[in-house]
Amino acid sequence: MTLPDDIPAINHRILELIDRHLRAPAGTHIPQSCADIYDAVVSQGQSSNEGGKRLRARLLLSIYDAITGSRSADRDAVMDVACAIEVFQTGALIHDDIIDNSDLRRGKPSAHLALTSALTRMATSEDHDIALPSAVEHITHIGAGLGIMLGDLLSTASIDIVNDITPHMEHADGILKAFLNMHREVEIGQVLDLAVEHVSLKDPQRLSQASLAVFRWKTASYTTVAPLTIGMLAAGADPHDEAAAIGSDLGTAFQLADDLLDIIGDPARIGKPTGGDIREGKRTVLLSDALSSSSPQDRNYLLNAYTAEQRDDDDVREVTRIFKDSGAIEASRKRISTLWSTVQDAINRTSQKLNFSDEAHHDVIECCSLFIPENLR
Amino acid sequence: MTLPDDIPAINHRILELIDRHLRAPAGTHIPQSCADIYDAVVSQGQSSNEGGKRLRARLLLSIYDAITGSRSADRDAVMDVACAIEVFQTGALIHDDIIDNSDLRRGKPSAHLALTSALTRMATSEDHDIALPSAVEHITHIGAGLGIMLGDLLSTASIDIVNDITPHMEHADGILKAFLNMHREVEIGQVLDLAVEHVSLKDPQRLSQASLAVFRWKTASYTTVAPLTIGMLAAGADPHDEAAAIGSDLGTAFQLADDLLDIIGDPARIGKPTGGDIREGKRTVLLSDALSSSSPQDRNYLLNAYTAEQRDDDDVREVTRIFKDSGAIEASRKRISTLWSTVQDAINRTSQKLNFSDEAHHDVIECCSLFIPENLR
Repeated sequence: MTLPDDIPAINHRILELIDRHLRAPAGTHIPQSCADIYDAVVSQGQSSNEGGKRLRARLLLSIYDAITGSRSADRDAVMDVACAIEVFQTGALIHDDIIDNSDLRRGKPSAHLALTSALTRMATSEDHDIALPSAVEHITHIGAGLGIMLGDLLSTASIDIVNDITPHMEHADGILKAFLNMHREVEIGQVLDLAVEHVSLKDPQRLSQASLAVFRWKTASYTTVAPLTIGMLAAGADPHDEAAAIGSDLGTAFQLADDLLDIIGDPARIGKPTGGDIREGKRTVLLSDALSSSSPQDRNYLLNAYTAEQRDDDDVREVTRIFKDSGAIEASRKRISTLWSTVQDAINRTSQKLNFSDEAHHDVIECCSLFIPENLR
Repeated sequence: MTLPDDIPAINHRILELIDRHLRAPAGTHIPQSCADIYDAVVSQGQSSNEGGKRLRARLLLSIYDAITGSRSADRDAVMDVACAIEVFQTGALIHDDIIDNSDLRRGKPSAHLALTSALTRMATSEDHDIALPSAVEHITHIGAGLGIMLGDLLSTASIDIVNDITPHMEHADGILKAFLNMHREVEIGQVLDLAVEHVSLKDPQRLSQASLAVFRWKTASYTTVAPLTIGMLAAGADPHDEAAAIGSDLGTAFQLADDLLDIIGDPARIGKPTGGDIREGKRTVLLSDALSSSSPQDRNYLLNAYTAEQRDDDDVREVTRIFKDSGAIEASRKRISTLWSTVQDAINRTSQKLNFSDEAHHDVIECCSLFIPENLR
């Protein structure tokens, strides 16, 4: 392991940046009676930003380091851009959790639920001058409203971070544009993801193609393509073709692995019980593959289970069995390992073209490998 | 009336810009099965952007024209920035309507409701391959999810529009920063607005002060201060102090007038029945003033009405009477006309400092006057 351990520096810098961009600037006035709620939103912005693996920031720094050779004078500035991607992700996940009604994120209550709890605590404490409606669903709606605004604040902050730092970078051309492009791609991807969830199950091959295409928008865009594109731009290299050649397949493999681990992962390692996606009725490539290649009886079971209002523990067990017996899990493993070979080839080509040292080449491969669990590569 | 009639050009350009920034770029692939839903989101983005009075864009152009003397070569570029403020506003209002559960916007169904209807139409048509959950609240939740994403897309588009055009402007320094600052101020303002709605009614003077402070964040920021700041920057002038001196008071007067018209306006002209704010239990400055200066009996009535779960037609009538009898309506009128004098003084100072021609000075006054109905100035 020769990768620089940037995680503590990234974590530290993200908190500084959130503080700078979310707190009301000096000279502006937040009325006292509203300050408690605003403080709760900023605090939630901090805690929602904690605890990620920082894969995206590290990928950006890794390709930048590989191209510039060693730590250049620009690296602190580039670090801010890397942090901005993480801040953007946090904001996007907050909106995502509201849309998906998700209760948990990184093992903690999702932001809108945490904000609902904070509001409820304030309303029942005598230290605060806050009166809430009595109906629980109204309080939950206010929490969701604060969550929408926190997501918006983090999205704005992420762009502002990039806009503040690019004038101090040697190679800044195109970076803000690439960053805004990433925002848009993820937003389009979220719409497509909502759409895929409501496409009928009649044509599983079409569903599988659609799901894979959506991965490019909603996951690869900001997970791998944008970090590689921006890291290359910051190092003065032309990302054209190169970033997409590595990033599209790596991001797709990352999402496929994520969906697969939900079925075959170790609950202790993934931080949640397996089968969550089945319980939620999520339209995965595993489902499409299973629908395409299972027995008529199993196929009927899947159709019934996934069009029902909800799925219980028995369904999770039976669907898991069908995913195995139909060969869907094996197909997903194969897809992931094929994609990983393609990614390695693409890295090799980029490495040659941009004259990476052996060590730099090795570091980029190692950083990319972090996106896919070892037993799936 | 010597103000240039920019409204048709603004409307036309906004639709072009939305199309460019929301459609998937050439060479990217949106899977067919998701395309219908994505198209519905883009169409809603277009129609949500229709029908505004374009006050913000016109204020930006008005101060820019006043400083540059006549129509300069840069004006088309500045027009894009003016349109970007309108696009930002539309996105912010879409999130606002989700947060406030508002059914109507500019006399049409709000975006999240229109998207819910579009989904329902697609699910019941044979031309689309879409299956929706049967429960209405689930469909509404999906519509709200698409609304959140449309708001995000428009927010990103607004920034991208500015980032694309500033390299083509003679004076671009600070414009993107001011634009991002506006985003953040409005987002902070929305949080504060949610907070004000849940401050207890025990201390009406404090509530009134808080409401007025929130107006600066949530309304004046993007309605007047940012258009003036950005218009001045685009014309190569220093907006420091000047933009805030005119904009803060003008934006506050605009919001006070908006709240007042909800009570005393002509339903035909404001496009909705009067008393909507009372029905919603909105914490206005009118309410704070009435709580401060009404008889104990009327005060009790207000406290009961505004802490109840809902308010009926009788409440609207009685609260309106109390607003009148307590002097709250008169106080609001006075506040507005005092603010309008201050605004005129501030315009006069800016006009002298920046050597406006008589005609330019007159045009800026006229443009600012559009923000406040004639009988309230």
